[in-house]
Amino acid sequence: MSLIVQKFGGSSVADKDRVLNVARRVVQTYKEGNSVVVVVSAQGDTTDDLLEKAAEITSNPSKRELDMLLASGEQISISLLAMAIKTLGVNAISLLGWQAGFSTDEIHGAARIRKVKADRIKQELEKDNIVIVAGFQGINKYDDLTTLGRGGSDTSAVAIAAALRADRCQIFTDVEGVYTADPRKVKNAIKLKEITYDEMLELATLGAQVLNNRSVEMAKKYSVELEVLSSLVEAPGTIVREETTVEKMLIRGVTKDTDVARISIIGLPDTPGIAFKVFSKLAQKNINVDIILQSVGRDGTKDITFTVSRENSAQAEQAIKSLSSCKDSQVVIDENVAKVSLVGAGMETHPATASRMFEALYSADVNIQMISTSEIKISVLIEKEAADKAVKAIHNAFFD
Amino acid sequence: MSLIVQKFGGSSVADKDRVLNVARRVVQTYKEGNSVVVVVSAQGDTTDDLLEKAAEITSNPSKRELDMLLASGEQISISLLAMAIKTLGVNAISLLGWQAGFSTDEIHGAARIRKVKADRIKQELEKDNIVIVAGFQGINKYDDLTTLGRGGSDTSAVAIAAALRADRCQIFTDVEGVYTADPRKVKNAIKLKEITYDEMLELATLGAQVLNNRSVEMAKKYSVELEVLSSLVEAPGTIVREETTVEKMLIRGVTKDTDVARISIIGLPDTPGIAFKVFSKLAQKNINVDIILQSVGRDGTKDITFTVSRENSAQAEQAIKSLSSCKDSQVVIDENVAKVSLVGAGMETHPATASRMFEALYSADVNIQMISTSEIKISVLIEKEAADKAVKAIHNAFFD
Repeated sequence: MSLIVQKFGGSSVADKDRVLNVARRVVQTYKEGNSVVVVVSAQGDTTDDLLEKAAEITSNPSKRELDMLLASGEQISISLLAMAIKTLGVNAISLLGWQAGFSTDEIHGAARIRKVKADRIKQELEKDNIVIVAGFQGINKYDDLTTLGRGGSDTSAVAIAAALRADRCQIFTDVEGVYTADPRKVKNAIKLKEITYDEMLELATLGAQVLNNRSVEMAKKYSVELEVLSSLVEAPGTIVREETTVEKMLIRGVTKDTDVARISIIGLPDTPGIAFKVFSKLAQKNINVDIILQSVGRDGTKDITFTVSRENSAQAEQAIKSLSSCKDSQVVIDENVAKVSLVGAGMETHPATASRMFEALYSADVNIQMISTSEIKISVLIEKEAADKAVKAIHNAFFD
Repeated sequence: MSLIVQKFGGSSVADKDRVLNVARRVVQTYKEGNSVVVVVSAQGDTTDDLLEKAAEITSNPSKRELDMLLASGEQISISLLAMAIKTLGVNAISLLGWQAGFSTDEIHGAARIRKVKADRIKQELEKDNIVIVAGFQGINKYDDLTTLGRGGSDTSAVAIAAALRADRCQIFTDVEGVYTADPRKVKNAIKLKEITYDEMLELATLGAQVLNNRSVEMAKKYSVELEVLSSLVEAPGTIVREETTVEKMLIRGVTKDTDVARISIIGLPDTPGIAFKVFSKLAQKNINVDIILQSVGRDGTKDITFTVSRENSAQAEQAIKSLSSCKDSQVVIDENVAKVSLVGAGMETHPATASRMFEALYSADVNIQMISTSEIKISVLIEKEAADKAVKAIHNAFFD
């Protein structure tokens, strides 16, 4: 008998038919002889509807009160799912975040889980209940409700799996697993059987929106074995764990990220510490910088180019212009770019990988603007319009 | 500076405009120099919408899960009201039933309040917050959410007022106070300035649906001064307290109750203990009996006639027929009846009151079927069609 944590997102419980479908999936796992804890998000558009109710009252709602409001969404979905499971003749009980033992810090709207005191969950499992837990929420030390921010239900599920030392944490989504490229765009994309946490993190960061990043980080920290699988199609998904047994395929996938902007600062004084000044200013403003390129100094000036996420580009420009060292420089922003990345373990030790990737791009007539490499990925910045073509070309080079 | 508890029902917070209106009323009381605790119900049709969601899943939902589901309704209204008050520049904080310290027994769907541990409410008042509390809900000893049943928000408000020793508990409704008769039916009905708890209880029992009975009983027990007033019209309402200072008007009002059935058992054996057998059987089945009339024995038999609420009439008939002593008797049910009552303190010591009431009915050509009197009321059972005419006639006799 195994202990399985299953997480279903909002679209999986959007209406009564889907709630009943999830109930059947959960009961099936239970009837196979497992103990089951289920984490669910709010139904379909509930969160957006609640946000609209708040927006009708004020454009700047109190974050504490917004958490109070939003946490009602999962309260509805967990009680409905518990009712649905009971109609199938199996015991079930729903628990709110605080009842399930979720303590968080005080940051309303983006709280971090401090601890999961899973005594109540254990008690209910011992009473042979399927336990339904409200994802996305907890309480802080003042006993006030907090929410973990969007996508937080994945993190809730992993945290419970860690606290209970569950055998597996299954994340049900609208895709069947993790693919070597977006299967809607690249028709010969392959579903991976296994992948490591680090590879999964790179894929998530690079735009493959399968799992919330924080949940993967937490799964890595507590060695929780994850499985990403479809809530609609019954088929094995992709397992995420530390050591994968399938080693023959080094390359895990090709992703693109179009939510990126390139910022160039042209004509900076070629003096020591100038890069430090620019990037510490950006760090102060909580702006993450990705690929960085610095030109060689010439005529006493140099250029620095880097990428940020698109929503931060205006703020980044403002921050740079506020620096006295940059007062004579020109700031150019280009949002017509995309980052395309190849992800896989052991890439560093296979120098041929990069050249094969660049060759594929060259053959497809894609111009590379910037390059960045790490142990498990190679990213290039290219013109946005060429992104899909580039993904296909790289994918074909490695998976055909 | 006074401490005021204000309760607003679901229709008072049904949409954003009404939420903002309630916020203004509350802030006005606060700016007059009072500490304010507000109890609110779920918005408008929220509870019915949630019940429908449950009904889509199962016709027989778990009561525990139904409480979990329904309690989300007030969570939405309290957070929206707190946001609305903050837009008016006053500090506010919302608290769920459990955060506000409401402990109840274990009866899901109709829980009774065991205790209100109001420490958190007091803390928040000391921080100069207007405190918004979710009515209708609490937690039991297992930390499971419970609801008090419909109308329970009145009781929540009175319980908080009792726990805080508040100076007054204001119940905002869609009427302007307690009237001597239904103002929609009797145009010269008068709004009472004051009324005692017992009189209020009689009026509630007799069909004036202004306050939930349990809330009045609790207010009496803990000497909480109540005020019933309108959430839309700004005018003083009716004060409910133990001793009223306005004594000149003894008669408090005239009410009708058409939710009543008359049951006659004809031809019972005229033996000792027969009435006991009938009424103890009904008590066993939890059927409340109101007016009772027993004929004088004749030919070795007698008749017993009594009233019950209409929904209980079929069950009462069944219970009577199951008694061996009643096997030769005939049971006749008449649902075409209404109970009209005159309520007021000191009625017993003014024998003229009853004759004046009966004279009014006689003049209006209303036939009296049964009569019942207590210290503070006189009730008559009459034909249902004559009920409105009877109320008007009695009202005119005492209030014109």
